Amino acid sequence: MSRYLIDRYQSLEAYVPGEQPRDMQYVKLNTNESPYPPAPGVVEAVTGEAGRLQLYSDPVCVGLRDALAARYGVTRQNVFVSNGSDDILNFAFMAFGSPRAYFPDISYGFYPVYAELHGLEAHPIPLRANFSIDPTDYMALDGFIAIANPNAPTGMALTTAQIEDIVVSNPDRVVLIDEAYVDFGAESCVPLTAKYENLLVVQTFSKSRSMAGARLGFAIANEALIADLEKIKFSTNPYSINRMTLAAGIATLKADDVCTENCRKVMQTREATVERLRQLGFEVLPSKANFVFARHPHADGGFLYRQLKAKGVLVRHFDSPRIKDFLRITIGAPEQMEALFEKLGEILDGTDAKDRF
Amino acid sequence: MSRYLIDRYQSLEAYVPGEQPRDMQYVKLNTNESPYPPAPGVVEAVTGEAGRLQLYSDPVCVGLRDALAARYGVTRQNVFVSNGSDDILNFAFMAFGSPRAYFPDISYGFYPVYAELHGLEAHPIPLRANFSIDPTDYMALDGFIAIANPNAPTGMALTTAQIEDIVVSNPDRVVLIDEAYVDFGAESCVPLTAKYENLLVVQTFSKSRSMAGARLGFAIANEALIADLEKIKFSTNPYSINRMTLAAGIATLKADDVCTENCRKVMQTREATVERLRQLGFEVLPSKANFVFARHPHADGGFLYRQLKAKGVLVRHFDSPRIKDFLRITIGAPEQMEALFEKLGEILDGTDAKDRF
Repeated sequence: MSRYLIDRYQSLEAYVPGEQPRDMQYVKLNTNESPYPPAPGVVEAVTGEAGRLQLYSDPVCVGLRDALAARYGVTRQNVFVSNGSDDILNFAFMAFGSPRAYFPDISYGFYPVYAELHGLEAHPIPLRANFSIDPTDYMALDGFIAIANPNAPTGMALTTAQIEDIVVSNPDRVVLIDEAYVDFGAESCVPLTAKYENLLVVQTFSKSRSMAGARLGFAIANEALIADLEKIKFSTNPYSINRMTLAAGIATLKADDVCTENCRKVMQTREATVERLRQLGFEVLPSKANFVFARHPHADGGFLYRQLKAKGVLVRHFDSPRIKDFLRITIGAPEQMEALFEKLGEILDGTDAKDRF
Repeated sequence: MSRYLIDRYQSLEAYVPGEQPRDMQYVKLNTNESPYPPAPGVVEAVTGEAGRLQLYSDPVCVGLRDALAARYGVTRQNVFVSNGSDDILNFAFMAFGSPRAYFPDISYGFYPVYAELHGLEAHPIPLRANFSIDPTDYMALDGFIAIANPNAPTGMALTTAQIEDIVVSNPDRVVLIDEAYVDFGAESCVPLTAKYENLLVVQTFSKSRSMAGARLGFAIANEALIADLEKIKFSTNPYSINRMTLAAGIATLKADDVCTENCRKVMQTREATVERLRQLGFEVLPSKANFVFARHPHADGGFLYRQLKAKGVLVRHFDSPRIKDFLRITIGAPEQMEALFEKLGEILDGTDAKDRF
């Protein structure tokens, strides 16, 4: 830190993304990436743009917004696009957060960072003992509300009826529903945006659309909320989406059936993974996401994480009190899950682990 | 605007980028893009990444930062990279701006937007009557200082000795030198960053490196200032640079000689353009950038802008008091400049314009 950094950011603790190791090749099940390649047409679309990179991208992103509007049955004015959904979450906390923000105590680790960054009073609301969100905790609050649905890292989802109750109960506050993982079996609140002016739904191309490395997020909401987000974007970084990502996004939407099929395969692998984890003695939370959150009654989460890493399998472990026994395991391709189970078997059966039981 | 937008952003006026029209094909000399395609190797590098988009990009950007460090004779810890130089300017105003910011009154139109966005007291310092920056105006100030060098839209540059005096005179404040246009004939302050802990130099791949549409900016400074920028990035949008842009940036640095040659060609075209504009009666400010700023003693700037646009040539006009007589004209390829002069000739000679003289 320099002596020039202004006071309010001196104690700020930045978000820590999942490891992107460069030391060796891992079976990488730690950042919820899709195991499937980008949709057909993406490489061609990107290559076409690469030859025109000397020209700015369209800051209004008309083509992509129109394609998303058509896909979700809304208008261009209901769609905001930006450089990954983190960018949108940041803007939303900034634009609608003051003076306080409510979110589940166990959820996406970026919410408290955004709250601190923008000087908001953060109010983490504890999950129930079974790690589910209790919707009644979110009724008639006096601040901005952010809920990941499905929640991360639990993978557990609320129904749209439960979310609608929250939205109705907070008419003077923006309720942000972060649907990064919604395409893996949960219900989307996008249809509710036509009805409620305070509902902001955020999604991403990173997971179900195999574009984590392209950085593309979008939000759907009432025109006025979208106009606010546009204002923030045009006051920070108007050309935030590059030409190649815009083209990749449009090509991906044209191949929506492929993405749907990829999601179906991930859900199938997830169900098989849950069953095998349970056979190994794990408790697994009911997941509607492309990851599972699981703990073993006799093996410490940190220990399993480190053992798996040493054996070349990377999963995510959060060293925080209520969830330190858990591992968050991304659902990869079936062969990646085989590798996981082979190593897990070795650890749980082997002499390596017995002193931890 | 929604009724949910917090008070402090309600009166915020966003930046207005140069037009990116979609209605017809223009000779586009309005956003300072390079007339030359991306460097050899860029298309191939981008295509390679497009097939791996399901995987996140490296948030630490090791490969690109190392390539920049090698190019500029610094270490990785002296280099920050982000999603366009606008992103970096935003972070710098945010991290180092409080409570006030000084910048030239005629300069990049985003500086006052950033100041307002971050709640800073903005102190625009008037240019001299000849539109140059007076370095003595920037001595021993009590706030953050941002200077574009060369300045935009004038194209006029300070020497590094003049900037060094400003940096030395403000040891307790960050001095940001925005070198977006430095490669077209001005002197870079990068070497001074080794000497002064308060100097932050920002550059971009958009102009001299033909990558406006890829969004890539970088900063070079003392390690501690770079660490502060990293902290802000990791508290807003850690994966802000996508895989394709990272690869394009590395490929472009490998072809540095091509970019240097492109800059040489632009400078040659610029000198020819200045000469022809003067022959037509224009006053042209001495430019070290890839654009010129020119006014005609008998033709109104707004009128020329509109007439040129109607004839298919797009230049930039700023409707603000001291510079409303001027046009900012990007230096394009020689054939684009021919088109400009053909249309300018028609307008200045023709009946179209005579009532404006």
